[in-house]
Amino acid sequence: MSEERVLATYVIETPYQLEHAAVVMAGEQSTGTFVSVPGETAFIKETYGANIVRITELEPAAAPSLPGCKPPRGDANPVYRRGEVVLSFPYHNFGPSIPNLLATVAGNLYELREFSGLRLVDLDVPVQFMEKYRGPQFGIAGTRELAGVTGRPLIGTIVKPSIGLSLAELQALVRELALAGIDFIKDDELNGNPPYAPLKDRVRAVMEEIERAADKTGKKVMYAFNITGDIDELRENHDVVVEAGGNCVMVGINSVGFAGVSHLRTFSQVPIHGHRNQWGAMTRSKALGMEFRVYQKLARLAGVDHLHTNGLDNKFYESNESVVRSVRDCLTPMFGDDTVMPVLSSGQWAGTAIDSYRAMQTVDVLHLAGGGIMAHPGGVAAGVESMKQGWEAALAGHSLGEYASTHVELRQAMEKFARP
Amino acid sequence: MSEERVLATYVIETPYQLEHAAVVMAGEQSTGTFVSVPGETAFIKETYGANIVRITELEPAAAPSLPGCKPPRGDANPVYRRGEVVLSFPYHNFGPSIPNLLATVAGNLYELREFSGLRLVDLDVPVQFMEKYRGPQFGIAGTRELAGVTGRPLIGTIVKPSIGLSLAELQALVRELALAGIDFIKDDELNGNPPYAPLKDRVRAVMEEIERAADKTGKKVMYAFNITGDIDELRENHDVVVEAGGNCVMVGINSVGFAGVSHLRTFSQVPIHGHRNQWGAMTRSKALGMEFRVYQKLARLAGVDHLHTNGLDNKFYESNESVVRSVRDCLTPMFGDDTVMPVLSSGQWAGTAIDSYRAMQTVDVLHLAGGGIMAHPGGVAAGVESMKQGWEAALAGHSLGEYASTHVELRQAMEKFARP
Repeated sequence: MSEERVLATYVIETPYQLEHAAVVMAGEQSTGTFVSVPGETAFIKETYGANIVRITELEPAAAPSLPGCKPPRGDANPVYRRGEVVLSFPYHNFGPSIPNLLATVAGNLYELREFSGLRLVDLDVPVQFMEKYRGPQFGIAGTRELAGVTGRPLIGTIVKPSIGLSLAELQALVRELALAGIDFIKDDELNGNPPYAPLKDRVRAVMEEIERAADKTGKKVMYAFNITGDIDELRENHDVVVEAGGNCVMVGINSVGFAGVSHLRTFSQVPIHGHRNQWGAMTRSKALGMEFRVYQKLARLAGVDHLHTNGLDNKFYESNESVVRSVRDCLTPMFGDDTVMPVLSSGQWAGTAIDSYRAMQTVDVLHLAGGGIMAHPGGVAAGVESMKQGWEAALAGHSLGEYASTHVELRQAMEKFARP
Repeated sequence: MSEERVLATYVIETPYQLEHAAVVMAGEQSTGTFVSVPGETAFIKETYGANIVRITELEPAAAPSLPGCKPPRGDANPVYRRGEVVLSFPYHNFGPSIPNLLATVAGNLYELREFSGLRLVDLDVPVQFMEKYRGPQFGIAGTRELAGVTGRPLIGTIVKPSIGLSLAELQALVRELALAGIDFIKDDELNGNPPYAPLKDRVRAVMEEIERAADKTGKKVMYAFNITGDIDELRENHDVVVEAGGNCVMVGINSVGFAGVSHLRTFSQVPIHGHRNQWGAMTRSKALGMEFRVYQKLARLAGVDHLHTNGLDNKFYESNESVVRSVRDCLTPMFGDDTVMPVLSSGQWAGTAIDSYRAMQTVDVLHLAGGGIMAHPGGVAAGVESMKQGWEAALAGHSLGEYASTHVELRQAMEKFARP
């Protein structure tokens, strides 16, 4: 049998001794049940049981973070201990299967009453997973090649309003953006395949404009069509995009599951743009769910090429520190050439380029500005230009004000979007 | 355009006025972005915008439940207001698509910084969803017919130890259970298609025993094989089960996504046993994620026939009140004949039958005891018998002690499993 193990790191909170709590986790997620059963032999425990690799005590919690925890009997005023626990699971318990891995490392254990907090913070799987799933097909280099962009981030936008544009309105917008030299456009995650404007009509309308603009400019915009849907629709929608000459598909990872993403990966001919909507539900409570570090590893294994990370000063709850850590995670190899392009998004405009570059020290990002381009006072083309100027300033080491003094689009963006 | 709407009910927590917070939610999840954009016309807002149907103020929170909330500027000591908010979304924004519906009703809004809590607590979709997804194929009646059980719950067990049994050990266990007259057996959710005992071998081994026992007893046990896996594997695994004469498949709903479940539903020839492992991560923080009421509606639409709900006095954090509500939800029709069989599980034994019947007032449950059958002092057959006796007592209105005094298997179960 394989000696390979999966390492799963948790931060736990419990009124029990950390050692006891770790034993409960390991038992629940491998050979145990609530009472000893006859067949649970020493051989089975040894061969299939989870091991406790390490326990590191952390500061205790002032109060239980999650409801339903049952402290030890007779302990009227328990200490809610916190600790980092690393468990190792035999790879042969599940094999190279993300769905079955999840049942082990992120399954019932969230519900155990011995815990008032349990969060999966890191995960290391053996290379067999990458051999099966194959990871990002295009990644950063493939995306850059298709988009024809080197030495700076891809500049992109999201079609806004998110929903409701007629095909003619959408065409006019895409035309303007494409002629303005934008690198990337994406559908909003709210816009999938709605009855009022079916995806196939949207694809035809958009690709017509993109090809026409490419004839003029020599540059073919990358457009991520939102092909999110049921399983059979993923293939149909993908084929509609590819047959129309499209060069990117977007999918809501949590809407189709990692299983849906890895299914798409088996036949996709274009990069997969991974949107993470619903992710907040899995991560915003710090005592539950999982860290982005785990999520991005699974999404990469499953085969996304781009992955949303939020951007600095976003309109969401996420801190800049967390965003920067997420970007770094996406750019950290797991088994080799398997990094993906982080997608900076939400509340982005030209002025966020300098801070982003300073904090992230990379140009390997896809920088999306929705309102920051669409609502630019000089119009959409000026919005695109301002984003490029922001990154020029960042790469040349200029301050925003300095560079804006000689670049009108950047100055207009500052006037409209800079927070006082 | 269709006048149909989707109604989504949330419990929110926010340092803003509830009305303002509801406007933010509605805007984010329909036509809005962080700044007004030129194309967001009155027509678009009216046709595609989400409406606020109702706001009901609840007791405020003492402190913010989730991190990252940004109170209004200048409000140094904000009140974290709580309220129930009902939003209505135009059906034509997404059409009958669970994946795209999720992006709207459960997407980015969890991350909005205006909120220190946001939980989806109910969801009503128009009938077009049921017309597309078709819901449970077998449901309660179809399951009862296949299992040959009327007038009482199906009595079942989970193979324990969860993992590690050799095929010969598994066969011996299944034989014993089948000859003891059990109605239902399931694989553990940890046991999918592991290299040490591939599903196809497990299916062959188990079905051999089940058919042999059926020849003797005239009763064919329903066995839920855990076919959880990647998308193409779902069909392969399903076919392996059906070709071997199997009559149920189990899938980890959150491991394959609702998209995976509804894909399986399109071709499954047997009932789908829906396991909800990982569900705790989506629900245990009361300020985040969703209520089981929403989850079970989506799982039923997607096509499960059985759905795990925990059982009374379970080993998890979930309260009995919550379990009973979940069972009732599964038994409440949405559009007609679309109820599913709730699966009572975790820490169950014969003694939980009486309380379950009293609290749930139904026999339409699948009552699973793992340790409660496997670790019964009289052996597995006595464990099964004790479960039947527990339900006899429940249905006849006897107390546990009373019925146990004349039924040895029930008495043995009490002696071992009853909590002092």
